[in-house]
Amino acid sequence: MARVDGLNPYHGRIRPRRRLAEFITARAHVVTMRGFYIGRFQPYHDGHHRMVADIVDEVDELVLGIGSAGHSHTTRNPFTAGERVMMVTKSVAEFDLTTYVVPIEDLDRNSVWVSHVRSMSPSFDVAYSNNPLVIQLFEEAGVEVRQSPMFNRDVLEGTELRERMIEGGEWQHLVPDAVVTVIDEIGGIERIQRVSDTDSNGP
Amino acid sequence: MARVDGLNPYHGRIRPRRRLAEFITARAHVVTMRGFYIGRFQPYHDGHHRMVADIVDEVDELVLGIGSAGHSHTTRNPFTAGERVMMVTKSVAEFDLTTYVVPIEDLDRNSVWVSHVRSMSPSFDVAYSNNPLVIQLFEEAGVEVRQSPMFNRDVLEGTELRERMIEGGEWQHLVPDAVVTVIDEIGGIERIQRVSDTDSNGP
Amino acid sequence: MARVDGLNPYHGRIRPRRRLAEFITARAHVVTMRGFYIGRFQPYHDGHHRMVADIVDEVDELVLGIGSAGHSHTTRNPFTAGERVMMVTKSVAEFDLTTYVVPIEDLDRNSVWVSHVRSMSPSFDVAYSNNPLVIQLFEEAGVEVRQSPMFNRDVLEGTELRERMIEGGEWQHLVPDAVVTVIDEIGGIERIQRVSDTDSNGP
Amino acid sequence: MARVDGLNPYHGRIRPRRRLAEFITARAHVVTMRGFYIGRFQPYHDGHHRMVADIVDEVDELVLGIGSAGHSHTTRNPFTAGERVMMVTKSVAEFDLTTYVVPIEDLDRNSVWVSHVRSMSPSFDVAYSNNPLVIQLFEEAGVEVRQSPMFNRDVLEGTELRERMIEGGEWQHLVPDAVVTVIDEIGGIERIQRVSDTDSNGP
Amino acid sequence: MARVDGLNPYHGRIRPRRRLAEFITARAHVVTMRGFYIGRFQPYHDGHHRMVADIVDEVDELVLGIGSAGHSHTTRNPFTAGERVMMVTKSVAEFDLTTYVVPIEDLDRNSVWVSHVRSMSPSFDVAYSNNPLVIQLFEEAGVEVRQSPMFNRDVLEGTELRERMIEGGEWQHLVPDAVVTVIDEIGGIERIQRVSDTDSNGP
Amino acid sequence: MARVDGLNPYHGRIRPRRRLAEFITARAHVVTMRGFYIGRFQPYHDGHHRMVADIVDEVDELVLGIGSAGHSHTTRNPFTAGERVMMVTKSVAEFDLTTYVVPIEDLDRNSVWVSHVRSMSPSFDVAYSNNPLVIQLFEEAGVEVRQSPMFNRDVLEGTELRERMIEGGEWQHLVPDAVVTVIDEIGGIERIQRVSDTDSNGP
Repeated sequence: MARVDGLNPYHGRIRPRRRLAEFITARAHVVTMRGFYIGRFQPYHDGHHRMVADIVDEVDELVLGIGSAGHSHTTRNPFTAGERVMMVTKSVAEFDLTTYVVPIEDLDRNSVWVSHVRSMSPSFDVAYSNNPLVIQLFEEAGVEVRQSPMFNRDVLEGTELRERMIEGGEWQHLVPDAVVTVIDEIGGIERIQRVSDTDSNGP
Repeated sequence: MARVDGLNPYHGRIRPRRRLAEFITARAHVVTMRGFYIGRFQPYHDGHHRMVADIVDEVDELVLGIGSAGHSHTTRNPFTAGERVMMVTKSVAEFDLTTYVVPIEDLDRNSVWVSHVRSMSPSFDVAYSNNPLVIQLFEEAGVEVRQSPMFNRDVLEGTELRERMIEGGEWQHLVPDAVVTVIDEIGGIERIQRVSDTDSNGP
Repeated sequence: MARVDGLNPYHGRIRPRRRLAEFITARAHVVTMRGFYIGRFQPYHDGHHRMVADIVDEVDELVLGIGSAGHSHTTRNPFTAGERVMMVTKSVAEFDLTTYVVPIEDLDRNSVWVSHVRSMSPSFDVAYSNNPLVIQLFEEAGVEVRQSPMFNRDVLEGTELRERMIEGGEWQHLVPDAVVTVIDEIGGIERIQRVSDTDSNGP
Repeated sequence: MARVDGLNPYHGRIRPRRRLAEFITARAHVVTMRGFYIGRFQPYHDGHHRMVADIVDEVDELVLGIGSAGHSHTTRNPFTAGERVMMVTKSVAEFDLTTYVVPIEDLDRNSVWVSHVRSMSPSFDVAYSNNPLVIQLFEEAGVEVRQSPMFNRDVLEGTELRERMIEGGEWQHLVPDAVVTVIDEIGGIERIQRVSDTDSNGP
Repeated sequence: MARVDGLNPYHGRIRPRRRLAEFITARAHVVTMRGFYIGRFQPYHDGHHRMVADIVDEVDELVLGIGSAGHSHTTRNPFTAGERVMMVTKSVAEFDLTTYVVPIEDLDRNSVWVSHVRSMSPSFDVAYSNNPLVIQLFEEAGVEVRQSPMFNRDVLEGTELRERMIEGGEWQHLVPDAVVTVIDEIGGIERIQRVSDTDSNGP
Repeated sequence: MARVDGLNPYHGRIRPRRRLAEFITARAHVVTMRGFYIGRFQPYHDGHHRMVADIVDEVDELVLGIGSAGHSHTTRNPFTAGERVMMVTKSVAEFDLTTYVVPIEDLDRNSVWVSHVRSMSPSFDVAYSNNPLVIQLFEEAGVEVRQSPMFNRDVLEGTELRERMIEGGEWQHLVPDAVVTVIDEIGGIERIQRVSDTDSNGP
């Protein structure tokens, strides 16, 4: 157990590059540019990952909002928010920037959605989205939105992926390795196959 | 912008120590021990930080759950979930372990609280708490709970801290530096002073 | 600022015809017949206006309930409750009777819907509706319902109107002038066109 | 009114076979096996009744959970929870075992559904269901689930029954007598016919 | 397992007195008087039991509504709805009348409370309550309410009982035997003692 | 019933001054200044009325938001939203400006409260409030707030009024005449007296 004292309270497992990190933080504080990227990430896949790779060059920190966080165990939303937090966190770890991965539950009220997102996320300067409704809501609230050239590619790929999972096809090469690991551990393929076979109106 | 190709899709800002990280992940996979620590963190203070420092020696990964995530702008819950995400993330960055910081909204139903927490969090092996209700709920659900010797210290310190903020006293030395920065940036002291002066029943 | 005293506290902007109004109110108190007409009013259009014109001859006062008040920014419910309050209030101002325009949020429980409506509305003697579910719910609760000969015309016209807006067609001649003004001011056409282009499951 | 005193507080209407019941309870306490069977029971029909007849041979007590308890007055969910409580209670009265009939409202969160059900029901040892989602959720929670050979028969029969009601066909021979009585008393056929004729988005 | 055929589908465990039951049901149909009695039953105690004993002489069937069904694991509401369903069902089994025990979740809206209760309960002719708010709400809705001479006794006894449990006093002689059994089985005393020791604002 | 034709569809009860109204609307459109004033109005009293009288000189149109619209039948919130809509509408009718009276249900989330209010109200330029929390929330959202010199007078008077009602004291001279009428018609004094006598935790 770490000893706690005045001089060096958290020795032992403390990161050796801490001083550097502090220096960077201090400097970045003046100019920190924080982006916000929201998706359902059911699951997080290479399309999302490419979008993050693009965003990384434009921001200093990135918030990844996991939408529809309360939904799981359906064909369209097979994975829990926590499972998606793990997929996303493990996958974006390879990028060298500070990331925040925050589940965001639906409020089912478009008119307060931007305020809700803002209350759950560290403050951000720019939002990234290809979803027309998300763009509209952010713009009505005065938030800058940036789109990617690959319009709706992420949405299409998610649907395609889930269909492959349901039908027993190949999907592993379309997602980061960390996502394969998470889905294997939780028995995700069996889950989506089973729930896709259900009368549509819940338990 | 990062180029995307088969061999090295995310060059540029990619972390040089990626191979090492992958090695560690692969190895840790066998033995990963993940802990869960929940609090309201209004704000995150040195009492919480000491508890995290203790936990760090017992687990490989740590989930920090931010409770009552939907509450803000009250005397008892002055800060939004997003503000608390930033406080916690910046503060625990100094520890050398993987952390997940997840806001958790209240469902106001004790009987489903554990399931709710589990759905929002990466799966965990042990929960850390000094709150008797939390302990009771986790234990009824068969989750191992570990307590700290400093019973209820974290709760008491939160109340004390907020009172100091309201009365214009010194509080900065009782929280990590990152928390001071966040509270300053959002005008947190003015906020808590003002809302503490309000008729208690909301807007 | 208006002076406040015992005799004439609100002079200045007070309506000159106040005495008459008081006389009418006093007399009407004996016989006031109040009607209730609910719709989503997305937007309020000439079909609704004709129905109101009919109702006006049967009642002394009219409550206009704006249903699904929490919904907005979708193809089916493009406008907020507040925007619809303004559309309706401005449009019915031409009729010479007291009107109340009240947003009514969905509770998503048919069995308590009548009680919910009654709690949000001044008490009423008769409800006007062409919607079979609304009629059924009111009748089970013992409320008199009156239907109009033009069955479901209002519903059909709403759908038609929104399609014209989405496709860039003519719609202005199908709504009262006040509605055109409101929709122009809020950029309503751009909004509905954008959200109609969205993946259907919200942000 | 029953007199209340120390020796025999509830004489008069007290069951003569009470001693026996107590004896059975005392003995059964050692070995009580309690089953849980959930359905929407819109309405309770012979398919459900056959399933209960099967379950009866395997358990000592049976909980019947009435799902989607908050829904009523729609084509898919025409009857209130209370109406369904009466249908089920009267119908299962012929079986000689202790039954509990509990309405269970939707929480619209699959991840906490099992906890929610457990909080509303006496504890149970085994769940009976043919619904793949229900099976998946119970199994992830470690609850034993037993299926019946007649897969999805109950679901199909419910839809068929409601269509017959809407179209004015014969349905009385497909449900227990008590269900006919309840539906007649509440004017259930007129209700489902009317709501089936409604614009789909509620009042 | 029971054989299913046209003539005698549920032989084996079918009640021998079924014909009689049917006769009684048929006759009672003409004159059935159904009462409704709501309480939180935290826990169900002798005060409630005496009230039920009184009601039994006035009605043919009785619905027992378990209020605040979603609450549990607090000092004021220690037991889940399901635990209370079992307490009540086992306790009232000794009375010779048909009972329905239905959990009723709070909607936190007094204005729709009566409609909500009615939707969850078989229809009833008279409500029994000593709670002034409940009386007011039922009377505004036109439902007959009958009070008992022992005003508020049931409320006071509940508080007293829970205090005894928390402080380790004697409580078993104040509740029906079935309630002692349930509380023992679920570890209810340890639960209430622990949660009573908790910071008041939930987990 | 009004005849409907191309030329003059709403003759009969149409206001003779319609042309003037249109002229005023058109002109005012350039300069319309709209204010927003929110309160619980339990009940609307002379303190509120004086505040409205002040606001009237500063704005062209006024929105009166009825807060905590879902609450009723408690000591603190005795009247339904609909009853308060009637009190306010009748009382402010004497001022010569366009008013909107909109019930606003609580969302119990301070962070989205301003967005929620805005979605339920016609857009406004300035908010009027003496409540520190309301002021804080509007200011964080960039909305101008104006306070009145009589700090918290409205709140204090509401509490005082309700206490007088409960204790059978004089209250009629502290509210506009229309409020007396509404409270008399609904049996409001009996209601508040009865609910004030209730165990505090709802039905």
